[in-house]
Amino acid sequence: MRRIEKYTSLEKAVKKLISSIRIKSKVEVIQVSKAYGRVLAEDIVSEKTIPPHNMAHFDGFAVNSQDTAVAKPSKPVTLKIRGVIKAGEYVEACLNRGETYRIFTGGYLPKGADAVVPQEAVEVRGEKIKIFSRFNPGENVDFKGRDVKEGMTLLKKGHKISAQDIGLLLRISKHKIKVYVKPRIGILSVGSELTDDPDQAKDYGKILNTHRFVIEKLVEAAGGIPEYLGLVPDDLREIEFRLRESLNIYDMVLTIGGASVGDSDLVGKALQRQNPEEMVQGLRVQPGRVGGFAVIGGKPVIMLPGHILSTISAYTFLAYPIIRMLQGLSPKPYSVVTEAKTSSPIRHGRFLGFKRMVWVKVVEIDGEPMIDARIDSSSLYSVAVNSDAYILIPEGVKEIQAGEKVKVYFILGVSHL
Amino acid sequence: MRRIEKYTSLEKAVKKLISSIRIKSKVEVIQVSKAYGRVLAEDIVSEKTIPPHNMAHFDGFAVNSQDTAVAKPSKPVTLKIRGVIKAGEYVEACLNRGETYRIFTGGYLPKGADAVVPQEAVEVRGEKIKIFSRFNPGENVDFKGRDVKEGMTLLKKGHKISAQDIGLLLRISKHKIKVYVKPRIGILSVGSELTDDPDQAKDYGKILNTHRFVIEKLVEAAGGIPEYLGLVPDDLREIEFRLRESLNIYDMVLTIGGASVGDSDLVGKALQRQNPEEMVQGLRVQPGRVGGFAVIGGKPVIMLPGHILSTISAYTFLAYPIIRMLQGLSPKPYSVVTEAKTSSPIRHGRFLGFKRMVWVKVVEIDGEPMIDARIDSSSLYSVAVNSDAYILIPEGVKEIQAGEKVKVYFILGVSHL
Repeated sequence: MRRIEKYTSLEKAVKKLISSIRIKSKVEVIQVSKAYGRVLAEDIVSEKTIPPHNMAHFDGFAVNSQDTAVAKPSKPVTLKIRGVIKAGEYVEACLNRGETYRIFTGGYLPKGADAVVPQEAVEVRGEKIKIFSRFNPGENVDFKGRDVKEGMTLLKKGHKISAQDIGLLLRISKHKIKVYVKPRIGILSVGSELTDDPDQAKDYGKILNTHRFVIEKLVEAAGGIPEYLGLVPDDLREIEFRLRESLNIYDMVLTIGGASVGDSDLVGKALQRQNPEEMVQGLRVQPGRVGGFAVIGGKPVIMLPGHILSTISAYTFLAYPIIRMLQGLSPKPYSVVTEAKTSSPIRHGRFLGFKRMVWVKVVEIDGEPMIDARIDSSSLYSVAVNSDAYILIPEGVKEIQAGEKVKVYFILGVSHL
Repeated sequence: MRRIEKYTSLEKAVKKLISSIRIKSKVEVIQVSKAYGRVLAEDIVSEKTIPPHNMAHFDGFAVNSQDTAVAKPSKPVTLKIRGVIKAGEYVEACLNRGETYRIFTGGYLPKGADAVVPQEAVEVRGEKIKIFSRFNPGENVDFKGRDVKEGMTLLKKGHKISAQDIGLLLRISKHKIKVYVKPRIGILSVGSELTDDPDQAKDYGKILNTHRFVIEKLVEAAGGIPEYLGLVPDDLREIEFRLRESLNIYDMVLTIGGASVGDSDLVGKALQRQNPEEMVQGLRVQPGRVGGFAVIGGKPVIMLPGHILSTISAYTFLAYPIIRMLQGLSPKPYSVVTEAKTSSPIRHGRFLGFKRMVWVKVVEIDGEPMIDARIDSSSLYSVAVNSDAYILIPEGVKEIQAGEKVKVYFILGVSHL
C-alpha cells in the first residue's frame, strides 16, 4: 500500500512554497477611518508639520523665559496679560518683554514667547500675573514639528494599521490610503463521510463538518476573506474539478481532509494530475505530517489533514504565513511570541525526527507565566480548546524538563487574546 | 487657580471603580457559528461522548491485538478480512479471532477489536492480510470518550470563544450558546476648538477631532460597541445635559478632553454636579494623570484627557478593564504580557512618585526580543504610532538600565498583532 516516502522539513517546505507563488497582491484605496487592521501598500510621507507652530502643552501663560529668570517665591515677577490664545489659535502679534498671553492647551505661542507657565504656578490679579520661579526656554512647549515634520516618512509599506495610526493619518490630512486587498481564500472540505447538516450527522456513517468553521475563523482572524465552498466526496475526478474551478476564482485554496496517501485520500493525487510547479506532501512536523501543498498556475493549494490538531498545525505553518504574505506582511507562523517556563516535564516518544507542535495553556503563577502542556492524539478537539498557544520541540529532542524556559507562540484566532 | 489636589494610585482607582459599578452584564443566546470572540455566559456541559465508540486513528485494519502477539517479520500472522468499516460507521458485528475488518480513519472498531494496524504495515492478498509485528491493545485507537465525556464541563462561564471552540461546540451538537451582550460604549468629545469637518480644521482655532477614531477602534478591539456621540463645547450646562442623556442609553460613557481642572476643563465639574456615587479625578500615572472617572446611577463615566498618550493611558487603565468586565472577562489592562530586554537605558525625571507608562517598540535581535522606548511629550501621536506595546516604570524609579528584563504589555487595538 502507498505511504508517504519522504517528509520535508518545515523550513524547506515553506521556502519552496513562498518562492513558487506567482500571484501579486492587489492594492485598493480605502478611507483611513475604515483601515483598522489593514496593511499599507504605500509609504506614508507627511505633507504637514505637527504642531505647525510652537504649541502650549498646558493651560497657562505664554512668556518670554528671560522675563522669569529672576523670579523667586519671595520676589515674584509681574507680567501684563495682553490677550487670550485658545486651543488651535494663532496670533500674529509679537510678545513684548514684560507681557504675557493667557494661553490654553493646544494654542500656538506668539512670537517672542518661548515657554508656558502652567496656570497653577501663577497668581492672577486683574490684568496682571505674578510668577514665582524661573522657567526655562521650551518648558511646557510642544515645539513646531516635534510630532511630525513635513517630508517625514511616518509609516512604511507593509505596516499593519492600528488604532493610533488612524488618528495620526487623519491628523496629517491623509483621509485615503493604499492598502493591500484582503486575499480571498477558498475552503474545500473533502470526505464522503462528511455532512453539513446537523440532522444527518446523527446517523452513523455521517460526520458533521466542524473543521471548516475553525478554518474559516482562523482565516478571518489572519486578515483573509474565507469562502467555504462546500463538501467534496472522495472521488478523484470530482476533487480535480472542484480544485480547478476554485483556483480560477480564489487567491489560495485550502483543502481539509483526504491529505494522506490512503485509498480514499485523493487530494494529493488530484493535485499531482494538474502538473503543479511545486508540490510537497508530507512534513517533518507532528501533528501535521500528512499536510502539504501544491502551487498550480502560481497559486497555492494547502492540504490540511483531517485530524483537527493536524488541520490547525498545517494551517499554522503553511496557510497562515501565506495569508499574511498575500497582504504584504512577513510570512511568520505566529502573531506574538513570549517566553514561559514549563510546569512539568514534556515528553514525547514518537516521530522524534520531526518537529513537535505542542499545545499549551499559559497560566500565571506568582506573576510568572508558566505553561501546562498536553500531548495527546491529534484527533482531539479538547486539546486545542484547553490551550492558548503552542510551543515547538526541536527535531530529535525527547523531553523538555520541568522549569525550562521555552518560546510560546500565540496565533490570532486560536489564542484567547 | 484650581489644581488637582490629590492623585489616586491606579490600583486604588480601579478598585473603587470596579466596586461601585452596579450595572449587570446582559445575556443573549446566539448561534455558535457566529460566536467567535464572544464570552460565554454559561458553563458548557457536554451531553455527548466523543468519540462515541472506540475509533480508528488511521486507515488500516481493526484487529484483536492478541492475534498479533506472535507476529514477526520472518513469521507474519495472517488474518481474514471480514468486511469494511468506513469513517463514522459502526458495525454491530463482533470480530472473531483470526479475523479483521478493513477500517478507515474515523470508523468505529467492532466488538472484539482493540487495535488498528496501519495499512502501510500490512500486506494484502485477496481476502487476507499479513501482519509482521506485534500491536499493543489500544494502538492507533482513539478510545470512546477520549476527547469528551458526557457530563464533562468543557468550557466555563467567562471563557472567550476561539476558532477551535466553535468546532468542538458544534461537534457536541451545541448550536446555540448563551453569551454576554457586547457593552455599548458612548463616546463624547469635549472641546470648543474641536471639529469633525476636515475642511474647517484647515482654519486656525479649529482642530480635527482625530482621537475619537482611536478610541472607537480600541473599544471595538476590546469587544465593545462604540458609538460616537459627537462634539460638546466647553459649556458646563451642555456637558451636563449630554452626559445625562448618554448615561440613559449606554452602559458606559467615555469623555475625551476637558478632563483637567483648568477654566475650560468642565467635565469633572459636570460629573460632580450629578452626585456620583464614586469619583476620582487625578491618577498617579503619567501620562494620564488628569484622567479619572465617576460612577453615576451605577454606570461608569471615564474621563480621558486630551493629549493623545494620556487619552490612551486612561483608556488602558480605566476603560479597557471595564469593557472586559462588562463582557464577563477579567478586568486587566492588557491582552498579552511578555518579557523583553531594554536596548538602552530608560530615564525619566518628572512625576517620580507616579507610575510611568512608557511606549515601546519590540524588535527581535538575534532571536531575542528587545525593546526600544521613547519618552516624550504626551501630545505626540508619533510616539504611539512607532510603538507596539507599553511597559510600566514603578513609582519612585528614575531609571531602568540597558539590558534589564521588563514586562511588556500588549493591548488589542494598539498593538500590531
